[in-house]
Amino acid sequence: MTFSACGTGPVLGPSVAEIVDSHASGSGSPVKTAMRVADAIEARGDDGTWISVVPRDRLLAAAREIEARPGARALPLYGVPFGVKDSIDVAGVPTTLACPDFAYTAEETAPAVARLLAAGALYVGKTSLDQFATGLNGTRTPYPIPRSVYGDNMISGGSSSGSALAVALGQVPFCVATDTAGSGRVPAALNGVVGFKPSRGVISTVGLVPACKSLDCITVMAGCIEDVDRTFDVLAGLDDNDSWSRSRGPSYGGTPIRIGLPDATDLEFFGDESMAAAHFAIRKKILRSAATTVAVGLGPFLDAGALLYQGPWVAERLVEFADFLAAQPDSIHPVVRDILRSGEKYTAVDAFRAQQRLQELRAEVGRGWRDMDVLVLPTIGTTFTVDEVLARPIECNTVLGHYTHFGNLLDLVGVAVPMGLTADGRPVSVMVLGPALSDDTVLQVAAQLLDEPRSHSDELAHEPLSQSTYTLEEQL
Amino acid sequence: MTFSACGTGPVLGPSVAEIVDSHASGSGSPVKTAMRVADAIEARGDDGTWISVVPRDRLLAAAREIEARPGARALPLYGVPFGVKDSIDVAGVPTTLACPDFAYTAEETAPAVARLLAAGALYVGKTSLDQFATGLNGTRTPYPIPRSVYGDNMISGGSSSGSALAVALGQVPFCVATDTAGSGRVPAALNGVVGFKPSRGVISTVGLVPACKSLDCITVMAGCIEDVDRTFDVLAGLDDNDSWSRSRGPSYGGTPIRIGLPDATDLEFFGDESMAAAHFAIRKKILRSAATTVAVGLGPFLDAGALLYQGPWVAERLVEFADFLAAQPDSIHPVVRDILRSGEKYTAVDAFRAQQRLQELRAEVGRGWRDMDVLVLPTIGTTFTVDEVLARPIECNTVLGHYTHFGNLLDLVGVAVPMGLTADGRPVSVMVLGPALSDDTVLQVAAQLLDEPRSHSDELAHEPLSQSTYTLEEQL
Repeated sequence: MTFSACGTGPVLGPSVAEIVDSHASGSGSPVKTAMRVADAIEARGDDGTWISVVPRDRLLAAAREIEARPGARALPLYGVPFGVKDSIDVAGVPTTLACPDFAYTAEETAPAVARLLAAGALYVGKTSLDQFATGLNGTRTPYPIPRSVYGDNMISGGSSSGSALAVALGQVPFCVATDTAGSGRVPAALNGVVGFKPSRGVISTVGLVPACKSLDCITVMAGCIEDVDRTFDVLAGLDDNDSWSRSRGPSYGGTPIRIGLPDATDLEFFGDESMAAAHFAIRKKILRSAATTVAVGLGPFLDAGALLYQGPWVAERLVEFADFLAAQPDSIHPVVRDILRSGEKYTAVDAFRAQQRLQELRAEVGRGWRDMDVLVLPTIGTTFTVDEVLARPIECNTVLGHYTHFGNLLDLVGVAVPMGLTADGRPVSVMVLGPALSDDTVLQVAAQLLDEPRSHSDELAHEPLSQSTYTLEEQL
Repeated sequence: MTFSACGTGPVLGPSVAEIVDSHASGSGSPVKTAMRVADAIEARGDDGTWISVVPRDRLLAAAREIEARPGARALPLYGVPFGVKDSIDVAGVPTTLACPDFAYTAEETAPAVARLLAAGALYVGKTSLDQFATGLNGTRTPYPIPRSVYGDNMISGGSSSGSALAVALGQVPFCVATDTAGSGRVPAALNGVVGFKPSRGVISTVGLVPACKSLDCITVMAGCIEDVDRTFDVLAGLDDNDSWSRSRGPSYGGTPIRIGLPDATDLEFFGDESMAAAHFAIRKKILRSAATTVAVGLGPFLDAGALLYQGPWVAERLVEFADFLAAQPDSIHPVVRDILRSGEKYTAVDAFRAQQRLQELRAEVGRGWRDMDVLVLPTIGTTFTVDEVLARPIECNTVLGHYTHFGNLLDLVGVAVPMGLTADGRPVSVMVLGPALSDDTVLQVAAQLLDEPRSHSDELAHEPLSQSTYTLEEQL
């Protein structure tokens, strides 16, 4: 395995920066890159990463078209290949949501994707997902179930299962995915890549088939923070057609960042001792190197997560899918169908009551940001194999979402950061969370954790924090 | 009828400023004021204005207690009497919500009221309301139905029926009321007083029995903008116990205010030609004197109002009242009971669907504020008698809320401003609306409409706009 120059993650392929530089300098070209991508995807066969791929001849033609554009070499994503989660529209391509009977051919390209294309990026195909983006495990699909790049029959995570995998495999340096309750972070954690869920509304969700429309975010999967920065700069932008659209927050200003860390007893690893050991070793390094750390109670965060998992928000999915559920129930994956049906039992009173409770939790969490700038948690407490998830589809999923379920409900920014391996060789991921519109500060901390240079000063990571293999002895 | 020096409204009594000045200078005293208030209330008898009043001896004792406080004369509301809508807690006093079987004796005073008391204000009693604050007409009560100060059996409006009336009668210079869909503005319009609904969360709603908790605001009824300013300065403040709490917005900066006016064809007066004539005469003056006016489509505002009136938000009232409705249905006013029961039919899917639609309307309205600072509308399109409302309780209420239903859903600031009389002697009210946290700009325009001097420059009202009697000839 050769590591990319991008960050310190295990991603096999070149980074956005490397690709853009090689294309701009002429040492590479969009057409050569397109050929490499087509080869890499073909080499894997139908492993569940992609639902549809642009055929080789059309991919090469698209690369040639980009090369022929006037001023192409100055484009910020000149010839950079990327994948799109298959719940986001690309004109002329089926949007399947991993449900063949629901699929339709999109007439317009989602504005977020259109911005990438305008910046010179090369659309490669549609990546796998849990059906209707409902799941955090990647097994809820009639297509082949993708496996984590770390092998051992480990799930790829979901719902953006294929997006994380395509990046981890080095097929493309970034993918556009989504996150409603962790879908853009959990698969990143299981594949050792960066999964960035920005503030809701900063990237337009027009052209995304909603899961829970009030919570949905378009996200970025990439190999490093620099690649997230480069793609986020292109993706972010006000869209009057997106009711949740808002402007990006301020850039990180260089002041010391106060890092919140929960009480160790608040952390749950579901019996996974080597994952716990790895996480506590990372915490130890953060405690040693960070300017300021703050002890934080996880109560209101987890309470909000429980509200999502046990409460009426599942009914919001029926705003989009109730008609299809009624008309073609047999076309829906059984687990997804049961989940959707569970939304039918909630009344409007339930919804308002839960929203009032959520507002209390938002206020409580909001007051927490007076004393800290970001919160650092595990992205996932443990990993699962495909067989484990198939045997206990709901329970495993709940475990996977323990640290991510609350993020969207609480209007947070979150980024999953790959931080090496457990002693038994599984991926370790740390999640940096911040309040809405603190995207740049959250990414700054993520870059520091990865020991990635960034434009701002670097007061956290006096020593590299990533790419260790953690042992139990290092535990706090 | 002798007019107060406060503004140019028809209020009979002295203003907050006059009372504070007389107490501070010694020309009057809290005890003398208390006696005057007790006399004025007694003189009216049980006219439906008050649900409970502090007995004369205890009121005088409270006034003496205020006088005895060290530094009392410097208090911003030194000895100023006020009423409290009877859905807001005052320790030791029953909170009835105009439902005797629901009533309980409050153990704590609502923080908003506590701030007034700390500022030296004198609590006088609890004012009438439509039961459970559910209504805009003032007739939904088992207590005597209050009538507008303008007579002719005209409703006082609701739900803050008694609060508006107590101010209009000059019994107290201000009242603390509430507004969920117009309850603080409609009765102001029907009694010729100012009804100010600030941005949600700027005044704590702790100690208010919720109507729709996510929309409820505590409001001020007063005779003029100066009195609103004085009381709002005391009432506003962050409260960590209020999940919707937020800081007050910026002060008006003195820049020219762009006034939005809807297309004349968008305005609805329900056949009330003299009300239409009066409103169009006011518009004409605004058009003549304002620095900038902007033509505005009312569509998204009215669509949001329809969403409230025809949609699932009524179910939010059941979060508070479902148990009581189930246990003691016969204790509830029949009209209110039917309304509450109508909330039972909505599902969570209905709620989420309507909230998604509301988000679209919020975004559309939000974009409108790029081009205007405030929007000026009628507060009500017409008036009703008590008999008319009793005959058609739902229809009349809907008409009364035509211009107010959307304000809270769209997170607006609103102030009802008394602007004289129709040709046939009924009160005319104009409503100034602005986006959340534009409270001070909205109040600035209201002061200009009333030709009230305020601390900021006065670029709108080159001529007095209020206290005219409008004739049809003046119509645009």
